[in-house]
Amino acid sequence: MNAFIRTLGSLVFLIATLLCAAPTHAEDGYDLWMRYHLLAPEQVKRYDSHASQLIIGSTTPTQTATRDELQRGLNGLLGHAPLLSNDINRNGAIIVGTPSSSPLIARLKLDTTSLGNEGYLIRSVAVDGHTATVIVANTDVGALYGAFHFLRLLQTEQSVDHLDIHESPRLKLRVLEHWDYLNGQVERGYAGASIWDWWKLPDWRAPRYTDYARANASIGINGTVLNDVTDGATILTPTYLQKVAALADVFRPYGIRVYLSIRFSAPIEIGGLKTADPLDPQVQRWWREKADEIYRIIPDFGGFLVKANSEGQPGPEDYGRTHADGANVLADAVAPHGGIVMWRTFVYSQNNPDDRAKQAYEEFKPLDGRFRSNVILPVKNGPIDFQPREPFHPLFGAMPKTPLMMEFEITKEYLGFATHLVYLGPLYEEVLSADTMVHGKGSIVAKVIDGSLEGHTLTGMTGDSNIGTDRNWTGSDFNQANWYVFGRLAWNPTLSSRAIADEWVRMTFTNNNAFVKPVVDMMMGSREAVVDYMTPLGLVHLMGPGHHYGPAPWDASESRADWRPVYYHRADHEGIGFDRTSTGSDAVAQYAPPVAEQFNDLKQTPEQFLLFFHHVPWDYRMRSGQTLWYELVAHYSQGVDDVKQMRETWRHMDGYIDDQRYQQVASFLAIQQKEAQWWRDACIAYFQSISGLPLPPGYAPPEKSLKYYESLTFPFVPGYSSWQ
Amino acid sequence: MNAFIRTLGSLVFLIATLLCAAPTHAEDGYDLWMRYHLLAPEQVKRYDSHASQLIIGSTTPTQTATRDELQRGLNGLLGHAPLLSNDINRNGAIIVGTPSSSPLIARLKLDTTSLGNEGYLIRSVAVDGHTATVIVANTDVGALYGAFHFLRLLQTEQSVDHLDIHESPRLKLRVLEHWDYLNGQVERGYAGASIWDWWKLPDWRAPRYTDYARANASIGINGTVLNDVTDGATILTPTYLQKVAALADVFRPYGIRVYLSIRFSAPIEIGGLKTADPLDPQVQRWWREKADEIYRIIPDFGGFLVKANSEGQPGPEDYGRTHADGANVLADAVAPHGGIVMWRTFVYSQNNPDDRAKQAYEEFKPLDGRFRSNVILPVKNGPIDFQPREPFHPLFGAMPKTPLMMEFEITKEYLGFATHLVYLGPLYEEVLSADTMVHGKGSIVAKVIDGSLEGHTLTGMTGDSNIGTDRNWTGSDFNQANWYVFGRLAWNPTLSSRAIADEWVRMTFTNNNAFVKPVVDMMMGSREAVVDYMTPLGLVHLMGPGHHYGPAPWDASESRADWRPVYYHRADHEGIGFDRTSTGSDAVAQYAPPVAEQFNDLKQTPEQFLLFFHHVPWDYRMRSGQTLWYELVAHYSQGVDDVKQMRETWRHMDGYIDDQRYQQVASFLAIQQKEAQWWRDACIAYFQSISGLPLPPGYAPPEKSLKYYESLTFPFVPGYSSWQ
Repeated sequence: MNAFIRTLGSLVFLIATLLCAAPTHAEDGYDLWMRYHLLAPEQVKRYDSHASQLIIGSTTPTQTATRDELQRGLNGLLGHAPLLSNDINRNGAIIVGTPSSSPLIARLKLDTTSLGNEGYLIRSVAVDGHTATVIVANTDVGALYGAFHFLRLLQTEQSVDHLDIHESPRLKLRVLEHWDYLNGQVERGYAGASIWDWWKLPDWRAPRYTDYARANASIGINGTVLNDVTDGATILTPTYLQKVAALADVFRPYGIRVYLSIRFSAPIEIGGLKTADPLDPQVQRWWREKADEIYRIIPDFGGFLVKANSEGQPGPEDYGRTHADGANVLADAVAPHGGIVMWRTFVYSQNNPDDRAKQAYEEFKPLDGRFRSNVILPVKNGPIDFQPREPFHPLFGAMPKTPLMMEFEITKEYLGFATHLVYLGPLYEEVLSADTMVHGKGSIVAKVIDGSLEGHTLTGMTGDSNIGTDRNWTGSDFNQANWYVFGRLAWNPTLSSRAIADEWVRMTFTNNNAFVKPVVDMMMGSREAVVDYMTPLGLVHLMGPGHHYGPAPWDASESRADWRPVYYHRADHEGIGFDRTSTGSDAVAQYAPPVAEQFNDLKQTPEQFLLFFHHVPWDYRMRSGQTLWYELVAHYSQGVDDVKQMRETWRHMDGYIDDQRYQQVASFLAIQQKEAQWWRDACIAYFQSISGLPLPPGYAPPEKSLKYYESLTFPFVPGYSSWQ
Repeated sequence: MNAFIRTLGSLVFLIATLLCAAPTHAEDGYDLWMRYHLLAPEQVKRYDSHASQLIIGSTTPTQTATRDELQRGLNGLLGHAPLLSNDINRNGAIIVGTPSSSPLIARLKLDTTSLGNEGYLIRSVAVDGHTATVIVANTDVGALYGAFHFLRLLQTEQSVDHLDIHESPRLKLRVLEHWDYLNGQVERGYAGASIWDWWKLPDWRAPRYTDYARANASIGINGTVLNDVTDGATILTPTYLQKVAALADVFRPYGIRVYLSIRFSAPIEIGGLKTADPLDPQVQRWWREKADEIYRIIPDFGGFLVKANSEGQPGPEDYGRTHADGANVLADAVAPHGGIVMWRTFVYSQNNPDDRAKQAYEEFKPLDGRFRSNVILPVKNGPIDFQPREPFHPLFGAMPKTPLMMEFEITKEYLGFATHLVYLGPLYEEVLSADTMVHGKGSIVAKVIDGSLEGHTLTGMTGDSNIGTDRNWTGSDFNQANWYVFGRLAWNPTLSSRAIADEWVRMTFTNNNAFVKPVVDMMMGSREAVVDYMTPLGLVHLMGPGHHYGPAPWDASESRADWRPVYYHRADHEGIGFDRTSTGSDAVAQYAPPVAEQFNDLKQTPEQFLLFFHHVPWDYRMRSGQTLWYELVAHYSQGVDDVKQMRETWRHMDGYIDDQRYQQVASFLAIQQKEAQWWRDACIAYFQSISGLPLPPGYAPPEKSLKYYESLTFPFVPGYSSWQ
C-alpha cells in the first residue's frame, strides 16, 4: 500500500508537471534565449541527478541574482527548483560562489588565479563523499556568469557529467551602445521606442530593466551606453544623472556598468562656459567637476563615449585641437575614478574630398600613442559604414600604441531593418579572423582587439544595439540572435559563429535536431544572401538616402558626394567599382604590404571585394569564366533565390515550435522576399541602364521600370531622424 | 476500489488544477480585465453546472471569435473548457447564436425584435428537458457582446442561475480616437508609442491588434479612429489605405469599424488640386472618388473624423465657407456607402478675443440643422478643454436639429499623465447626468446624446484614447479602468460609475471584498482629489504651457491669451476667478435660462464651479463660513491629503494581488503624492503672491519659493509634440 501511495504520489506529481508544462501563454519572444522551458522527460531525468540541492550565498545582490536565476532556470527546465541548502548532504549538489564568500568552496582549494575578475570554473567534483558541480569564481559576478553557462548546458542538452570548464573573457569592455534619444526615439532603431522610460525614472524601475540586465549577463556583456550623442549634454544634468543612477543600481548586481555618450559642447550647453576648448583650464575643470559629480552618485560609472567632429557633432577640432586633446581632457577627468573614454574613430572630414574609406585612418593614425592610457578607440569593422560586406578596417593593426576596440552594428541599418532574417555571426567572424599581416601571418583582427598583438590590457568590443520596446526586444525573433552572438564574441572573439547559432537556436526554439540543423544552416547562409541581393561583389552603399531603406543606386541627391550611392559604385558605360588601388585613391596602401599587394592586384583580390577595390570593365572575365556583368546579375538573382529557399526551409519547420513565433517569422520572410526582389530588380534596372548590356539569358528582367523604382518615396521610415 | 480510484482521480485533477493555478508569469497588465484567472474552488463548483457544454456556430469569423473567447474564458475561470457540442444533451449547456444561424435558437422563439443590430438576450431556459443558458442576438456581433457579458458575470462572481438579461446599446457610435502619428508618436500619449506598426502592415498583423479588438468588443466599443489629423492626408494614400484595410480585417469580426481622421487640405496635398474649397466641383469629386476608393477595399469603412479650422488645421473657413459646407462635402462622399462624418466642434477663433468658453457655441449654434443627416458633431464634455472639472458644454441642448456626440478624453493630458491614479468614471457621470434644462427638468446630457431628447438616431460617444505600446496598454494599471468605463458608458450612459468600478476591480484584480471595497472607494474619491490638488473651486487651465505638465498658474508666455493660465484664473489683488456672468463674458447666457440663472448668481452657483463663473473676492464668505482664500488653500491641501490617504489604503492592499502590479501602483502613488504636493505648493505660492494674504493657520507653507517653481523646465515631456 505504501509503495502504491508513493507511486500514486509520483503519478500525481508527474501529471501536475505535465499539465503545467504546456505554456499558458503564447511565446512572444520576451524571454529571449532564457525561456527555460521544461525539458523532455528523459532529459529531466538525466539532469535531476545533478541538481538535487543548491548551495549558494545570498548575502550580496549579485549572489541573490545568481540564486534567483538558477532557481528560475532549473525550475523551468526540470520542473522543480533544487533544494536550497547550506551544506552538501547528497549527490548532485550545485555549489556556487567564491572562495571568500563560501567556506565550502574555499576548502576545495581550486586554482582561480587565472580567472581574473570575471572568469569562472565549472567542475564536477566530489565533496565530502558526494558528487557535486561547483561553479567557482573570484568574484560574485564571475559566479553569475558561471551560473548562466551552467544553465546553458542544460538548455542545449549537453552533458554535465564530467565538467572541467575554465572561462574568462578575452576582452575587458563588452559594451552595448544605445542610440536612444531622451525623447524615446531610437536612431536606426527598428524595434520600437527606447526601453528607458526616463519620465518615470528614478522613481519607477521597470521590470524590463532587470530582464535586460539578465539577458546581457547571460552573454557576458558588462557595459551599456545609455544614450545617443544627440542628448549628450542634457543627460549630464542633475535630473538625468539621478535617473541614470537608478538604472546603474538595477544593472550593478549583474556586472554591468553604465556609460554615457557626451556632447563635446556640454561645457557651453549646460555649463555656461563660453568655450569647449579642451586646452582651456576652465573647460578642463568643468569636466573634472562633472566627473566628480557623476561618481558621487554612480561610484562604478564606466566612463564616456564620444562622437566628435563627425556628422555635425561638435569636437576639439572646432578649436584647432586634435582628437587626442579632446579625448585626454575627458580621460583625465575620469581617470581618478577608474573610468575610461571611448573616442569614436568614425570621423570624416567636413571638406576633404578624399576617398571616404581612407578618412578615419588619415584622421587617427597620426595620433597613435598620443592618447591617455584610459582611452580606447572604437573602430567600425570596415572603413565605410556597416555594409553587408566590407574589408576589415585599415586602422586595425595601424595604431600599435593605442588600444582599439571593435565596433559592430547589431541593428540592421543596412541589412533590412527589423524584418530581414540576417544572422550577423558570419559577418563578425569574417572580420575578426581577417589577417592584418602587420606582424606577419596570424596578425588577425581578433588579436589586435584582444590586446595580444601589441600588449594592450585595455581591450573591448562595442555593439550598436538593436533593442527597443517591442515585446521581442529586437524587432524580430531572429534579430535576437545578433544580440546573442555579439555578446558571445565579445567574451571570446575566436568562437565559431556556427556554434553560437546552434546554441542560440536550441535555447530560443528547440533542441530537436530536425529543426536545429536546417535553421542553423539557414542562419549561416543568410548573410551571404543579403550581400547578394543588396550589394554583391564588393559593392557598398547603394541604399536610399537618409533613411537607408531600399535600393537607390541611382541616387545623387545628397549634399555630400560620399553620401551618394553613385560615388561608391562609379558605374559608367565601361564598368563599375571604385578604384582604391595605386591607380586610384590608393586606399589599399593603408593596409600592411602583403594585404595591400593583394588588394592592389585585380587578379589576387577575392571576388567578394572586387568592386570595393577596383573599377572593372563589364566584360571582365571572372573566375567562373562569365563576365562581371553576368556575375552581377547572377549574384543579385541568387540572393532572391536564397530567400525563397529560406522560406521553403521555414515552411518545413511548421509544428516544431510555437505558432505565434513561427507565423511571425514566416510573415517576415515573405516581406524579405518582396524586398530582396525589389533590391535585385531596381539595381539591375539601374546598372543595365548604365551598362547598356542585355540581361544574361535565363535571368528575368526587373518586374517594373527604372523610373518606377526611382519614383518610390517613403514618408515614415523607422529609425530615421526625420524628427531632427 | 473504484470509488477510491475515482476519488484519487479527482484528487490528481484537483492538485494539478491548483498547481497550475499559480500564474506562471508575473501579471504585467497585458490581459487587462480579461485575465480569466481560475476562480476559487467553491465558485468553480457553482458555475460548473452552468458550463457543461457549449453549443455555438463557427461558420463566420465572428462566431469563431465568440467561441474562442468563451473557451478561453471558461477554461481560465473554471479550469476546463466546456465540451463543444452540436446538440444539447445535458444540463448546464451554454447556447450561443442568432435565430438565423442556429435552428436550436430559432426553436426557442425568443423575442429579439428590440435588440437591433448589437443587442442580446441572456436567459436561463429549459431546452429539451435540460437546463441551459442561451445567449441570443439578431447578429453574430450581438452574440459576441452577449458572450462577453456572460463571462463578466463569472468574472465578477455573480449568479447565473436565473438570468433574464436584455441589453442593447443606447448609442450607435461608440468610438475610440487615437491621436497617433504615422511616425509612431502619440499626441498626449503617456503609454509608449502608437500600437499601429504601420511599417510592417499590411504584411504582418501583430497579435496585439486582435487583443485590442477583443478588449474593445468586451466593452462594446464598435469604432476606432486610427490616426491623428496631422497625418490626415498621407493616411489617404493608396499605400496607407492598404495598411488600414489590414487593420479593418482584424477588427471586423469583433464588430469594430475603422474611421480615419482627415486633413481638409488633402485634395491639395495628395490630390494635386489647387484648392480644397468644399464648394468647388473638382474638390467635391475628389472626395467622392477618394471615398469610393476607400470603400472598394474597406466595404464597411466607418467614415471620417475632421478637425478643421482649429489650432492651425486647414478647413472650409480658409475659403470663406462654413463648417457645414465642409462637413457636407465629406458627408455626401461617404453617404452612398453608409458612412458618416464626425465634425469636431473644438474650434476657437484665430482672432476673436471672446471668452474661450463661448467659442464653440458661437461657431456652431448658428449652423444648427444645416448638416447632412449623416453628420454628427463631437462636443467635448466642457467648454474649455478636458479640465479636472468643467461645467457641461453649452452646446448640449443648444443644437436640437443636429446630432451631437459626447467627446471625452481618456488619456490624462490634464490629470497627471500616466502615473496619477484618477478614475474618470465620476467625471463622465457628472457630465452625463447634468441637466441642460432645455426642455425642463430631466433634459440631461445623456438624453441629448442618446438622441431621445430631440429624436435623433445618429448618436454616439468618442473617447480620446490612452492606449500605447506599454505592456499594460495605458501607462498604468488603473488607467485601464478609464478605457473600461468609457466603453461601458458608451453602451449605456446612465450606468453608475461606482458599479462599473466595482466590475472592473473584480475582473482586473480580485473578487476579495477586503480589496474591492476600499479600492473602489479609492477610485471614486480620486477624481475629487485631483480637482483639489490641481484646480479646485472651479479653477481651470493652470498647467505648464504646451507640454501641460505640472503647475504654472503664473504663466503668461503663450502667444495666445487663451492659452495662458493667467487668462483663466484672473487672480488679482482683490480676488480670483473668471466672470462669465452677465457682468462679464456672459458665457452663462449660452445655457438654458434656469441653468443660466443659477450660474449667473454667485449665491446659487455650486461652489465646485464658483471660480469658473465668477470673479470672487479673496475674503468672500463661502458656505463653510471660511473665506474663499481659506477654502482655496484648504482644498489644495485636501488634495494632497487625499493622495496620502490613497497611499495608505494601497499599503493595506499588499498581498491581495500579484506583487508586480502592486509595486507599480505603489510607486506611481508615490510619484503622485510628490506631484500633488508640488501642484499645491506652487499654486499656493503663486496665489499668495497675488493675494498678499497670510496662509490660514494650520496649513504648511509651500516647501520652496515661487521663484523655484517658476524656474523648473522639462526637456522631454511625453506626449508633447516637440517633434512637430
